[in-house]
Amino acid sequence: MSGFLEASVELIGDKMMFEGKAGDFPPVITDYIPPLGEGKGYMPLQLFLISFASCTGGSIAPFLRRMGKHVAGLTISAKGVRREQHPTGFESITLDIRLVSDDVTDEDLKKVLTMAEETYCPVWAMIKNNVKVSTTYEIIAEAL
Amino acid sequence: MSGFLEASVELIGDKMMFEGKAGDFPPVITDYIPPLGEGKGYMPLQLFLISFASCTGGSIAPFLRRMGKHVAGLTISAKGVRREQHPTGFESITLDIRLVSDDVTDEDLKKVLTMAEETYCPVWAMIKNNVKVSTTYEIIAEAL
Repeated sequence: MSGFLEASVELIGDKMMFEGKAGDFPPVITDYIPPLGEGKGYMPLQLFLISFASCTGGSIAPFLRRMGKHVAGLTISAKGVRREQHPTGFESITLDIRLVSDDVTDEDLKKVLTMAEETYCPVWAMIKNNVKVSTTYEIIAEAL
Repeated sequence: MSGFLEASVELIGDKMMFEGKAGDFPPVITDYIPPLGEGKGYMPLQLFLISFASCTGGSIAPFLRRMGKHVAGLTISAKGVRREQHPTGFESITLDIRLVSDDVTDEDLKKVLTMAEETYCPVWAMIKNNVKVSTTYEIIAEAL
């Protein structure tokens, strides 16, 4: 476990576009919708949703596998409702989880979701008490 | 102001790699360091730092400009110290701000930073009381 992590962003141009970098990965461009920005990159809040959804997924998949279950597919859609007044962060986020598996039960999925929320998803922990998070899920049989 | 935002992630392969998407932007790959993952994409917490830094920068630059100041360059490096126990989110984050300008004063920068923290940066608001955030800054003269 690395004890700390770094990332940086650099302003590009005359509006609000930034080039974000961490590690050796391809840069991520952030921007805002016009007229504030030029709409040429992820809004920081969209990037936040990807961070949160992948963090949750990164708890769900390995724990199901450790329980001996087969994860044939996993998609998480995150929908955030923004506050109407500044700061316009999310007042609530829904994670819609779509899992493809022949042997994962509702109970299995509920169990790992609780583990993600309470213990293993760092992003979830960092927004606790500030953002209401709810989840829905669907377990789909594997294709023959 | 869009009232809600969406993003989705899809599991790729047998470990913890996800392909993240929002809007029409190029996908962002997330992953974890080995052995949990394959180290082929941003860790979700690195993506979180990019989201937070660009959100802060997106408050600073336009407000300085509205004050009639010239922003010739702006880089924000975010360093997060992780908790040693699960959930291993950040217990503290430092934002190191490097601004290139001939007319922005310390007071100007402090003022917009306070505005970002208290009102205009949504990511900052969502981690309030859960993560300690500190800032350092340097104002560098524009090249002749």
